[in-house]
Amino acid sequence: MIIILDPGATPEQRDSLTTDLKARGYGVHLSEGVERTIVGVIGTPDRDKSYLVEQFEALPFVERVVPILKPYKLVGRAFKPEGTVINVNGVKIGGGNVCVMAGPCTVESPEMLFETADFVKANGAHILRGGAFKPSTSPYSFHGMGEAGLQLLAEARDRTGLAIITEVMDTRDVELVGKYTDIYQIGTRNMTNYSLLREVGNARKPVMLKRGWASTIEEWLQAAEYIASQGNYEIILCERGIRTFENYTRNTFDINAIPAIKELSHLPIFADPSHATGKRSLVSAVSLGAVAAGADGLILETHPNPEKALKDGPQSLSFQQFGDLIRDLKPIAAAVGKTL
Amino acid sequence: MIIILDPGATPEQRDSLTTDLKARGYGVHLSEGVERTIVGVIGTPDRDKSYLVEQFEALPFVERVVPILKPYKLVGRAFKPEGTVINVNGVKIGGGNVCVMAGPCTVESPEMLFETADFVKANGAHILRGGAFKPSTSPYSFHGMGEAGLQLLAEARDRTGLAIITEVMDTRDVELVGKYTDIYQIGTRNMTNYSLLREVGNARKPVMLKRGWASTIEEWLQAAEYIASQGNYEIILCERGIRTFENYTRNTFDINAIPAIKELSHLPIFADPSHATGKRSLVSAVSLGAVAAGADGLILETHPNPEKALKDGPQSLSFQQFGDLIRDLKPIAAAVGKTL
Amino acid sequence: MIIILDPGATPEQRDSLTTDLKARGYGVHLSEGVERTIVGVIGTPDRDKSYLVEQFEALPFVERVVPILKPYKLVGRAFKPEGTVINVNGVKIGGGNVCVMAGPCTVESPEMLFETADFVKANGAHILRGGAFKPSTSPYSFHGMGEAGLQLLAEARDRTGLAIITEVMDTRDVELVGKYTDIYQIGTRNMTNYSLLREVGNARKPVMLKRGWASTIEEWLQAAEYIASQGNYEIILCERGIRTFENYTRNTFDINAIPAIKELSHLPIFADPSHATGKRSLVSAVSLGAVAAGADGLILETHPNPEKALKDGPQSLSFQQFGDLIRDLKPIAAAVGKTL
Amino acid sequence: MIIILDPGATPEQRDSLTTDLKARGYGVHLSEGVERTIVGVIGTPDRDKSYLVEQFEALPFVERVVPILKPYKLVGRAFKPEGTVINVNGVKIGGGNVCVMAGPCTVESPEMLFETADFVKANGAHILRGGAFKPSTSPYSFHGMGEAGLQLLAEARDRTGLAIITEVMDTRDVELVGKYTDIYQIGTRNMTNYSLLREVGNARKPVMLKRGWASTIEEWLQAAEYIASQGNYEIILCERGIRTFENYTRNTFDINAIPAIKELSHLPIFADPSHATGKRSLVSAVSLGAVAAGADGLILETHPNPEKALKDGPQSLSFQQFGDLIRDLKPIAAAVGKTL
Repeated sequence: MIIILDPGATPEQRDSLTTDLKARGYGVHLSEGVERTIVGVIGTPDRDKSYLVEQFEALPFVERVVPILKPYKLVGRAFKPEGTVINVNGVKIGGGNVCVMAGPCTVESPEMLFETADFVKANGAHILRGGAFKPSTSPYSFHGMGEAGLQLLAEARDRTGLAIITEVMDTRDVELVGKYTDIYQIGTRNMTNYSLLREVGNARKPVMLKRGWASTIEEWLQAAEYIASQGNYEIILCERGIRTFENYTRNTFDINAIPAIKELSHLPIFADPSHATGKRSLVSAVSLGAVAAGADGLILETHPNPEKALKDGPQSLSFQQFGDLIRDLKPIAAAVGKTL
Repeated sequence: MIIILDPGATPEQRDSLTTDLKARGYGVHLSEGVERTIVGVIGTPDRDKSYLVEQFEALPFVERVVPILKPYKLVGRAFKPEGTVINVNGVKIGGGNVCVMAGPCTVESPEMLFETADFVKANGAHILRGGAFKPSTSPYSFHGMGEAGLQLLAEARDRTGLAIITEVMDTRDVELVGKYTDIYQIGTRNMTNYSLLREVGNARKPVMLKRGWASTIEEWLQAAEYIASQGNYEIILCERGIRTFENYTRNTFDINAIPAIKELSHLPIFADPSHATGKRSLVSAVSLGAVAAGADGLILETHPNPEKALKDGPQSLSFQQFGDLIRDLKPIAAAVGKTL
Repeated sequence: MIIILDPGATPEQRDSLTTDLKARGYGVHLSEGVERTIVGVIGTPDRDKSYLVEQFEALPFVERVVPILKPYKLVGRAFKPEGTVINVNGVKIGGGNVCVMAGPCTVESPEMLFETADFVKANGAHILRGGAFKPSTSPYSFHGMGEAGLQLLAEARDRTGLAIITEVMDTRDVELVGKYTDIYQIGTRNMTNYSLLREVGNARKPVMLKRGWASTIEEWLQAAEYIASQGNYEIILCERGIRTFENYTRNTFDINAIPAIKELSHLPIFADPSHATGKRSLVSAVSLGAVAAGADGLILETHPNPEKALKDGPQSLSFQQFGDLIRDLKPIAAAVGKTL
Repeated sequence: MIIILDPGATPEQRDSLTTDLKARGYGVHLSEGVERTIVGVIGTPDRDKSYLVEQFEALPFVERVVPILKPYKLVGRAFKPEGTVINVNGVKIGGGNVCVMAGPCTVESPEMLFETADFVKANGAHILRGGAFKPSTSPYSFHGMGEAGLQLLAEARDRTGLAIITEVMDTRDVELVGKYTDIYQIGTRNMTNYSLLREVGNARKPVMLKRGWASTIEEWLQAAEYIASQGNYEIILCERGIRTFENYTRNTFDINAIPAIKELSHLPIFADPSHATGKRSLVSAVSLGAVAAGADGLILETHPNPEKALKDGPQSLSFQQFGDLIRDLKPIAAAVGKTL
């Protein structure tokens, strides 16, 4: 931590600060420049004392405080330089694999779910996605089939052998969802629902953590740290687009985040081009771009009849488009030395 | 709802759409322009059929769909043109009153809480704020005293007569927090935690709903609609700053939202200049601006020793600053014809 | 400047850096922490050596560089702590005055200009605004009357005694516009047109510098520094809203910027609620808020028939609304101890 | 154009509007819904009457106006469905080619320029980039060598056979720069400098138009329309990152814009991963992603000694990195059926 004093700070104020710092057991390194005095604090902050940054910044004679260390540790690249690989029912996530999760936005009926599951299985998907509990901006929208949807997902798993991933939105549902799913999904709206993060951190199943639509990469990694700090290290990050001024697309896919996460963290990083674009016509191009940039996998919405989908039809791939995309992805994966 | 067809749409596609619409019971109004065909749909969508917008937009020959009605109703201005006034233990929120809620970010100890409560009471605050359950970006920060903090808040109420407001973050805590608080606070991180919104919608106590830091005004009103749709109409909206590219301040206070909410909704609108600026030196100016622009009240952080606060010290007003602010607010309130 | 080394930096790399720094004549302050080495550089960077920040940051063993000084000087508060007051034909801008600039977006005809000029003069405006050269997002829109518009503005000045302000967009027009106007306006689209900034910096007339719609406060002050560095210190800053994800309004008025500019700079700060909201119904509330927060003045669009305006009709006040606003502004100005 | 009336609009207001529309020669299509009256206007707006949108929106009884047509035409996909291919000294831009433009941010000296030119030529670049006139946020930074830099670029062209691209920032320099360069570059800061756009529109050389850092895709295409409307159709669009809340990277590369431009426009679309990331370590991954998503080319900064660069060192590739990137790009280009 470096404390930059205000140009008007007096010697007495400076001394009171250094005395305080030494009393707390920290080393102090004083640097008196022409226009500013800079106080280097040695041996702090431990990450569990991050409140110190705010306390020192609240001093009237301090201009600002510059933290030196990253505010996360367990999910940082240095913690596991070789990278995390997660095994879900035999499917490897991370490492040299490109993993495709696909399925409908929402479980609507046995017929459409099974038809989709059979199709994506036959076309190379590794994991089946589908929502049973659905967050919706409007209180009057469809909110999912609940446990009945979870049961259908489990049936689809039995039928196809595909592992399943589904969203959990409420701390009270973590146990129930865990009875059925292979991977928990935390949606963008709940990235800062810390109670929920802790709850899935206590579960012993992999978690896909989607980025908050207005969360920085650093905040996203801190959210992952919540999960890891409870002992669950099987975390998959998923970039799903951030909110910007651009309104031709539903979100702006932050492709920079893919190599950025690779350098900052050991966790696998996925892309969700369906939500990141909101437009079916853009999904394939962005999928190819994401894998070329290093993504470990994709999560995609596909529906037998997008125009009859209860949610997210405009961004759902038709079966034809999904099949074409998988075909086009293979040479891209090969070009970056990975297996699809 | 207006459906704009793609320039390449065929007459057959157009007819299949109008047939479908009529079969659903809607009136159809066809307008063939030089470059586009436009389909007006009469008698739809009911707000509980908003999925239709997505379904029609998912049709390959549709360019876009323009909804006509606002996606909220109970919280819309037309539902209660005279405006909502909420009575909390005799304090009127809304109408011609400027209501000041003040206190520390977090309940840290009985001493600091009671000292602050006594001070803000003596200086004209109407309601005491303080956090017992605290969301923190870092898992290693202080997360509040929990129920012990709630008990202290209740003691402070007994002592000063001030009603209290405190945050609830977890559906499982709604009942517990409700035993102590007079007003529930939903924080910015939970504006899209729909389970939580529904839970406080089922409670029979006023709720302050802070705007999500990257939520539009329309989404914010839809979040309020979640609460109202459960039967709880006592909702206070609070603009607390949105996230933008500007980084000199913690957030950007969206003052436009104050008159915008006044025209769109009948609910009272508050301002939180502490979070909206993140800098103590800017809080007073923005507070004056918010009240002049029509805010029904302010929620402010103040602390006996901001430099010892466990959270939010840099944005907490000292007692001196708080007293000065209240003094400066009075002529502004008078200038806009309100009572402080 | 503080240079934070990468955790993997070797002692040799560290030494090569300190040798280099000393050879350039800087003092070096080395602080070896547990996890990072930090190099304090004394006596640098002079603001004219800001490229050093990038050069050191480009070193492979450097994690990041933290500049200490603000990147502007002439426009910084410390350069003129008492604040700048600009005198335009007897009108004082800054100090304890609230100055109102008003008029149509665009000069359309003598009739509408003179009618507006007479009206705003009679209703308390101090300066007449009107565009002769107009930037438009579409190449097919009206681009202003050019010199004929300037001549009309000059006539309106003769008629009313009001000083005038008008926009200049092209370096080649600075001389021409200067023959007519009392104040140059640099629009939001040209805040980073550095050639133009330098050109008006060489003129000897006041300049209103609007904030770029996606420029930080720091970049805005650097743009002002361009003007000042040419010797023209008569600069008025104008907050006109920034671009965010919110789309109910045309822009988001950054009211935080008003007190922020007051603490960072000695220049007067104006507000443009017309562009900041884009909606006539919100202009008055935001105007009141801006003055209460400390703005030195307002620039407002008003038009005799907003629904016939060639540009910006939806955000132009009718004469009735303008008169009401001035009436409501007076007690707000008085409440903050200023004169309107 | 569709005009949606306010719920409170009276029949008289509706009739005055339709009368007005018919008097202007437009067809009118009236649709009276349960809650709103909608007025379809047939035969308008011509794109050169876009001010009508604002005029109708300014009517007090109009809720909003929905334009139907895109506000650009010459650069729209429909104008040239097969796509534009530009030939610059034998290099094909667009079509099935991946074109690489590379070189230093700024021309600093003959030695560094020629060394870089020789290297990028030998490593597969097609066009040499380098700045002679440089925009800088700070007035105290290096602003380029001016005409001397242009002369060096021309010498480098003679030496290597590579065509050159360089930025023009001032309308007064368009002729001078045109004497040397093969392609004009309009930088992000000048995307809304409409005088400059028109000036290069009048030149008869290709123009690369970078996206404004806070400009929507639609505004960007309108800026291109400015150039095209002067008769210059040889326009290359370049996505260089947009400004968002994320601050780990310098900008957010909007990869969605690549397929979006492909569907909206016939112009070639390039990517600038150097500015889009601001970090050398992220440039290669984003370059691969951009080409996989369909970019027609890349513009890259490379420098013999990034840590001695006068500008943009942190985002400049070393020669080693540049060579590796070209090697990695080849299989990606092949995977999407293109030639590098």
